[in-house]
Amino acid sequence: MSVPSAKDFLIASKNSEIAGLEHFRRMSRLVVSISSLVHALQRERGASNLYLGSGGHRYGERVQELVCDSDKQLQVFNEALSQVDIENASASGDGRLFSRLALAVHLLSELRVLRARVIKEMLTPDAAIKAYSELLRSLIAVVFEAADAAVDPVLSQTLVALFNFMQGKEFAGQERATGSAGFAAGEFDEALRERMRYLPGAQARCFEVFSEFAEGEARKAWESIAASPENAELEKLRSLALENQSSVSGSRARVEDRWFELTTARIDGMKTVEERLRERLQALCEQRLGEARGALATQRSLMDGLLDRDSASEESFVIVYEERPGSGQPVGCRSGGLPPRLGRSLVDLMHSQSQRLQAMDDELTEARAALEERRLLDRAKALLMKHRNLKEEEAYSLLRHTAMNQSRSMADVARAMITVAEVWAKRE
Amino acid sequence: MSVPSAKDFLIASKNSEIAGLEHFRRMSRLVVSISSLVHALQRERGASNLYLGSGGHRYGERVQELVCDSDKQLQVFNEALSQVDIENASASGDGRLFSRLALAVHLLSELRVLRARVIKEMLTPDAAIKAYSELLRSLIAVVFEAADAAVDPVLSQTLVALFNFMQGKEFAGQERATGSAGFAAGEFDEALRERMRYLPGAQARCFEVFSEFAEGEARKAWESIAASPENAELEKLRSLALENQSSVSGSRARVEDRWFELTTARIDGMKTVEERLRERLQALCEQRLGEARGALATQRSLMDGLLDRDSASEESFVIVYEERPGSGQPVGCRSGGLPPRLGRSLVDLMHSQSQRLQAMDDELTEARAALEERRLLDRAKALLMKHRNLKEEEAYSLLRHTAMNQSRSMADVARAMITVAEVWAKRE
Repeated sequence: MSVPSAKDFLIASKNSEIAGLEHFRRMSRLVVSISSLVHALQRERGASNLYLGSGGHRYGERVQELVCDSDKQLQVFNEALSQVDIENASASGDGRLFSRLALAVHLLSELRVLRARVIKEMLTPDAAIKAYSELLRSLIAVVFEAADAAVDPVLSQTLVALFNFMQGKEFAGQERATGSAGFAAGEFDEALRERMRYLPGAQARCFEVFSEFAEGEARKAWESIAASPENAELEKLRSLALENQSSVSGSRARVEDRWFELTTARIDGMKTVEERLRERLQALCEQRLGEARGALATQRSLMDGLLDRDSASEESFVIVYEERPGSGQPVGCRSGGLPPRLGRSLVDLMHSQSQRLQAMDDELTEARAALEERRLLDRAKALLMKHRNLKEEEAYSLLRHTAMNQSRSMADVARAMITVAEVWAKRE
Repeated sequence: MSVPSAKDFLIASKNSEIAGLEHFRRMSRLVVSISSLVHALQRERGASNLYLGSGGHRYGERVQELVCDSDKQLQVFNEALSQVDIENASASGDGRLFSRLALAVHLLSELRVLRARVIKEMLTPDAAIKAYSELLRSLIAVVFEAADAAVDPVLSQTLVALFNFMQGKEFAGQERATGSAGFAAGEFDEALRERMRYLPGAQARCFEVFSEFAEGEARKAWESIAASPENAELEKLRSLALENQSSVSGSRARVEDRWFELTTARIDGMKTVEERLRERLQALCEQRLGEARGALATQRSLMDGLLDRDSASEESFVIVYEERPGSGQPVGCRSGGLPPRLGRSLVDLMHSQSQRLQAMDDELTEARAALEERRLLDRAKALLMKHRNLKEEEAYSLLRHTAMNQSRSMADVARAMITVAEVWAKRE
């Protein structure tokens, strides 16, 4: 059994960085395929909803078309899935990522049955939306864990932006469906109005975090959507819904159609923003891997120069120390062999690798804090929904009001709520 | 290329947990060997200091004995080192751990030369202490990174306790040397007094964190040392030093000897506390691995029961949904095949694995916060030492006073200082 040298460890440190990036590259392929798959399934969900709502009379062909589209994306997803190295993973985030993937893969395996039931009209529109939404949530959760497991700050930031954008887009899809239901029914009952109040805020929070972490181009693309006249028109329709005016100046159908057009155009616009993010993620992966490999090569040759000589030899002993005056040190000791500066620069190389890795970890913390906040909010919401029997929007609104009343952040309130819930759970 | 199933991912999630624990077990062996090696080198440093201080007239044999002891521990360390899998590591903390190990291994390779210079009296006592201390610092830094890379909360807490205890013990060793120097010289000049003011506080902070994270037995062992009459006597000698009274009622030699006796007995007592921590760490490793393996086996057989049937079959489609009344669903669909509860319990299994891993990560956060605080303080101290040319104790005292004056935590002040330093560095 050979004992690794200092050089071995310094190279292993670089290699472990590269292995982390390679692992991450496979994960990003998966994430990119999930982003496309989610988009396709969102469209399939929308059409299935319309099909069931029309009593099976309309949209049947559209559903079939979109099922084909989804299946194409599913194929790409499965290819990316088969590239994931499930045997040799031991990075700390992998366990969570895999358990999220387990659920997503399981729900995808039931998609065939779900579709059959939709076509045979064995489900209510609500039940179908619920089933599709559970599947979509499981897929988006994989992106969340991938972002959390990323070890490179720039990549992590891009993934945090992508996750939040996908989550915001999912809320936008839910808003389209909720609005369609209200405008089609001719009225927004209290439940629909509550949902119509909740969903724009939920989207806004996601897009805020996206804007914080996305690079300039994707952010600008999103800003131009947000500043469009269509968006202003959408705002007006939102107000109508909240005032429970399902029609303006007569025609109900016109408002319903216009709502669907505007929200659909908005969601399609989001898709192009998402594509930007995906392209950037993939380009960054390659770039960071190239950089890390280049740095390893540089470091190797640097070290070869420094370490080829026996590092334990008298000449290379260059820990900074003061010579005792008149200690009888031979003069040749300093002039022969490795100059002292070189030994120091080896130590410097090690220090700088440690510091660089630490600085990367510090930067990661910021991106992770945004994820942590979302996780806390989601958990607190789930607890309130379960134990106080609230709807999602009621739970959110309770959290928001508590935070406002107490002048604390929502994350703080959520954290406190989770702690209290744990204490209660233990007492029960 | 086969596509992994939901079951594969759920098992991979467990396996990745086990792989993480196995990796950690190898790391703990290394950490345990470092703890013994550090103790031996601390003794070697102390004797070398006395030897050089005596002009080479005394302690020569003692140094040789302790060098032999250190070499035995070095042997154990090298064995643990050869077990570390440097080829296949990609966990996020490994890069930093390896770069710290690179430095420690490099400095250990120079130990032979350092010793030769000590024996030949080519170094001042100060220079020898400096060289040994740099080596010790590099070894303790490995323990820090190992604690930071731990993925299991209980293991991480034990490592945080061990790291802080080792760091506190190192400060105790420095205090012994500083006190010995002052009492032997017959006076404590301002520099020595400053150091004598700094070191007890630095120890106290380490032992506080140790007490927060150590389990009962180790904590009690430490408390009994802290509450001993010897410790009270030591406090008196500390006061003497700060008042620059290097002797009481005459005999300087008696005080000097007593100081050395008391501090040595205290450090030896610390060694037994440290042994407790090491034993606990190793026992916990085995226990957690056993638990994780047991859980995997249970989960496997649970899943075999749930998943052997084709999960995409009509019968197992059990996403919660409401049946449309009169949708013509065959009655047999519910009675035949898998009962709906089973499909749910598979989803529950996945959810509970995700939640468990997330809860573990939450618990980790607490232990890591203690490490983060130390890291911030050390970095801010280093910056102040470098840029304002302060000594360690001056830097610490500046941080402490700023925190007290502004009613903020030292970690907050340190963080702010680091941020400002980075801004300045970018402007230069």
